[in-house]
Amino acid sequence: MGRSSTAQERLLDAACDLLHSSGYSAVGVAEICARAEVKKGSFYHFFASKQALTLAAVDAHWTQQRPVWEALLGAAGQPPLERLRRLLDAQAAAQRADKAGGGSVRGCLLGNLALELSGREPEIQARLAEIFDEQAALVQGVLAEAAATAPVVAAPVAAGPVAAAQVAADLATARAVVAQLEGAVLLAKLADDPGRLDSLWPAVQRLVRAD
Amino acid sequence: MGRSSTAQERLLDAACDLLHSSGYSAVGVAEICARAEVKKGSFYHFFASKQALTLAAVDAHWTQQRPVWEALLGAAGQPPLERLRRLLDAQAAAQRADKAGGGSVRGCLLGNLALELSGREPEIQARLAEIFDEQAALVQGVLAEAAATAPVVAAPVAAGPVAAAQVAADLATARAVVAQLEGAVLLAKLADDPGRLDSLWPAVQRLVRAD
Repeated sequence: MGRSSTAQERLLDAACDLLHSSGYSAVGVAEICARAEVKKGSFYHFFASKQALTLAAVDAHWTQQRPVWEALLGAAGQPPLERLRRLLDAQAAAQRADKAGGGSVRGCLLGNLALELSGREPEIQARLAEIFDEQAALVQGVLAEAAATAPVVAAPVAAGPVAAAQVAADLATARAVVAQLEGAVLLAKLADDPGRLDSLWPAVQRLVRAD
Repeated sequence: MGRSSTAQERLLDAACDLLHSSGYSAVGVAEICARAEVKKGSFYHFFASKQALTLAAVDAHWTQQRPVWEALLGAAGQPPLERLRRLLDAQAAAQRADKAGGGSVRGCLLGNLALELSGREPEIQARLAEIFDEQAALVQGVLAEAAATAPVVAAPVAAGPVAAAQVAADLATARAVVAQLEGAVLLAKLADDPGRLDSLWPAVQRLVRAD
């Protein structure tokens, strides 16, 4: 049982890694099994198909990431927008670590799969859509906190790390923050340059200012 | 010669369409040939590989799209930010047309390929990076025009369609606009809902306001 569980975990880890580096269509079950050091027969004991494994890998990835988002966005003793900045910094740090460790910026696993599989794999698409909705809801929560503490009169953004302006906390703004993150990561991956993400926070600061 | 030219064009059209719907790895030369009604032997007369065809298809797509961008961003008699709004509206209209015509939002061909192929197909990645740089330069040009005509003192965005605030025209802001477009299209594709792009212009209006 302990051994079976380990094989399943290795398959999930290998799938996350290979899907992140190469995408869905370019990776086969044989390659995932080889990376995980699991026999093909064992693969089908745990997962009905590559599609089923991908769905499980997406779930595993977000199950691991969601508490990180919650911890960063809910950190005690930090102003709300400072917590948002730290979340975005963590995303940029992950891209820098990829580049430093593996040689190239791999982008966002979930965003990569969203573009590759939407319109082709409805189950995976639906799960990814739920996850991005959860991300937008988490961002909206911290924006609502910021809006409740910001001054009532709109003011220009201060030079400091956190904007003193009034904050928009509607769902469209929260989704625009997630879109800005995904779009900036796309351009950083294309340029293979995590430094592109240095201007993410200034952009998001402007994006969340109320009119 | 006329016939050969037509076969080559049909291969490019078929590649653009299939790459847009299914991505790179999921589409094979046989499928492209079948769609184009061209024999496999003829394919290799025009293109050395699927990779070479994809590079040509990316070029053909941008060769067709760049004049559209230039026309919209350079339209005489329109204020600069109104021209930017029309460019973004055109992108949203293309997604709506995809949904109405083919049944689902297919996203941005170039953005889809950027996430799928970066780190795997260096030549295609380099060409896509150049194209996104050209897009950012075009956006920066219209922002520079807007900044030159906007009031010197920062002001809240007017209720009207075009912001009266001072505009930021640096390269990072132009890239942030392109990133917002790509990220919003990603989320619209994932939700299979072109209506998600209705909030693109309000977001971009905030994004381009100078601090």
